[in-house]
Amino acid sequence: MHSRSIPDEEKRRERSRSRLAGFLLLLATAFVSSTVLLAADAPADQLPSWNDGEAKSAIVDFVTRVTSEGGADFVAEVDRIAVFDNDGTLWTEQPAYFQAMFAADRVKAMAPEHPEWKDKEPFASLLKGDMAGVAASGEKGIVDMVMATHAGMTTDAFTKIVTDWFATAKHPRFNRPYNEITFLPMRELLDYLRENGFKTYIVSGGGIEFMRPMTEQMYGIPPEQVVGSSIVTKYALEGDTPVLTREPKIDFIDDGPGKPVGINTFIGRRPIFAAGNSDGDYEMLRWVTAGSGPHFGLIVHHTDADREWAYDRQSHVGKLDKAMNEAEQRNWLLVDMKNDWRKIYAFDK
Amino acid sequence: MHSRSIPDEEKRRERSRSRLAGFLLLLATAFVSSTVLLAADAPADQLPSWNDGEAKSAIVDFVTRVTSEGGADFVAEVDRIAVFDNDGTLWTEQPAYFQAMFAADRVKAMAPEHPEWKDKEPFASLLKGDMAGVAASGEKGIVDMVMATHAGMTTDAFTKIVTDWFATAKHPRFNRPYNEITFLPMRELLDYLRENGFKTYIVSGGGIEFMRPMTEQMYGIPPEQVVGSSIVTKYALEGDTPVLTREPKIDFIDDGPGKPVGINTFIGRRPIFAAGNSDGDYEMLRWVTAGSGPHFGLIVHHTDADREWAYDRQSHVGKLDKAMNEAEQRNWLLVDMKNDWRKIYAFDK
Repeated sequence: MHSRSIPDEEKRRERSRSRLAGFLLLLATAFVSSTVLLAADAPADQLPSWNDGEAKSAIVDFVTRVTSEGGADFVAEVDRIAVFDNDGTLWTEQPAYFQAMFAADRVKAMAPEHPEWKDKEPFASLLKGDMAGVAASGEKGIVDMVMATHAGMTTDAFTKIVTDWFATAKHPRFNRPYNEITFLPMRELLDYLRENGFKTYIVSGGGIEFMRPMTEQMYGIPPEQVVGSSIVTKYALEGDTPVLTREPKIDFIDDGPGKPVGINTFIGRRPIFAAGNSDGDYEMLRWVTAGSGPHFGLIVHHTDADREWAYDRQSHVGKLDKAMNEAEQRNWLLVDMKNDWRKIYAFDK
Repeated sequence: MHSRSIPDEEKRRERSRSRLAGFLLLLATAFVSSTVLLAADAPADQLPSWNDGEAKSAIVDFVTRVTSEGGADFVAEVDRIAVFDNDGTLWTEQPAYFQAMFAADRVKAMAPEHPEWKDKEPFASLLKGDMAGVAASGEKGIVDMVMATHAGMTTDAFTKIVTDWFATAKHPRFNRPYNEITFLPMRELLDYLRENGFKTYIVSGGGIEFMRPMTEQMYGIPPEQVVGSSIVTKYALEGDTPVLTREPKIDFIDDGPGKPVGINTFIGRRPIFAAGNSDGDYEMLRWVTAGSGPHFGLIVHHTDADREWAYDRQSHVGKLDKAMNEAEQRNWLLVDMKNDWRKIYAFDK
């Protein structure tokens, strides 16, 4: 049996190298200024956009515990998996989901090739700017709009459409590209977890192929660590060239009870850290915080109408009700955006 | 914008650390024996179970090209994705798929609780040891047997069943645990690719939850890098405890044209290296080797009846016909197990 895996082997070598470097450091201090070498070790606040207080302390305490070798709550690096919802947790979800804004922009851009949309809902209402009319078309209308704008092309073509949209579209309230409307404290949290050996994932109800072209640049999360909803794709040949085509049929809804299912399918082990902001994250929070070892559940509570939005129980986007009711009982950290975050966006003063 | 991702940041620091260590090494040679420190740099054959020849050279040449910084074929580490079929590519698939052997063992173990199986095919034939009778039940019979043995429990319970089976069951020809019936040259290839910055995945028609408990130990591949076929799982509460239950319904078949689809769903970018052994890998090989940059396709050809098995066009397990016909035209490396591999299993003399 070749039982030692290479990742282990690499870690072992890395440790040897570290020990060697440590030893050499001792020797080298005789030759070079220790000030220069030790500057990198100066302690720094890794969550500078979080105000000091209970929320920040709870996060730092958890990370310290699971990374303290020999401690009762130590978790091996390979099991440090953290999952994050996206809409309302890593980026804003108001005045509507960004993916809905994308779909609406696509309907407008595609309208000249679809004269029939003038008489067909929800397209007709959307093209007239009548959002109440769009809403009146209900779930079926929304699905029709998603399929008309998200299916019927290859995966490569869709990636280009998404990338182009992010490069040009602007958020209606802040008049900035959508990829700037992300929460700086949460990006710091992602960085902080990764620096402490966590592997960070997105687990979102949003479309997996809508997020993947942007997540590496926005959050440092590569495409293979993005779990999301999907439509059916099919292998086909265009001439002699293999392509994957996007079909107008739902494949998987990664929301609510779908989130633990998506986690199990894509990751295959239980995360120890979960962050969400709505009842769509309830089952994910339950699943993650039912683990037998140390675990952490976090809910972003939107409490800041001045800098972002304030909403919870009554909102039809990002409704937060049941998960908030059970937060205390289940020891989930409720982050108060207004009081816990010094900055919300990177462009905030 | 917080545009620099942490992985980049870590690499940068790692490089700084390496430079620092290099500098200190120079200083330290004045103090300690250079022999000890430099021993780790001695060149070594990283594919010792491969005979010297065209196959080995083609692999080493490819890896050298894509890892040579500044070269025309250099590929950034983040894009070095390699995908491997499992049955017949990483482990043996004769006299039957290991998962079929598992299902048969489970039927026997579960039979006392299922008296009705005495009169129900394919269970009745299987319990009598009549494999022709099992085969006569066709695809529906096989699916019934898979569902009876793979569904109806939680994911945690199934993982335990699989782990226990691997700990006790033995391969009928070699009388050794199934996890020893893996191809040593392919495990060396996985190690070699990882040492050169590749991220290695399994993309198999086998059950994803049948493979995941074992792949880390057998191949150094963690569960999140295993793509496979799946049945539907559902989130449920057992009392107040969240569980995932395995339902008797097929979710996804990761075989043939399903493999590029699985790759796109799970990985979200096109690999540059693919290895398979049958026509079930044809579309995966096409998809990977249609990439615009450097790419490599490899087919394991089972040519060694003495040490393993010899089969291709006529076999109903691992049939290799179309992919072999097109191998030369598409520049896929056909590995001749008998002549290219010095050892097949680690226990070979």
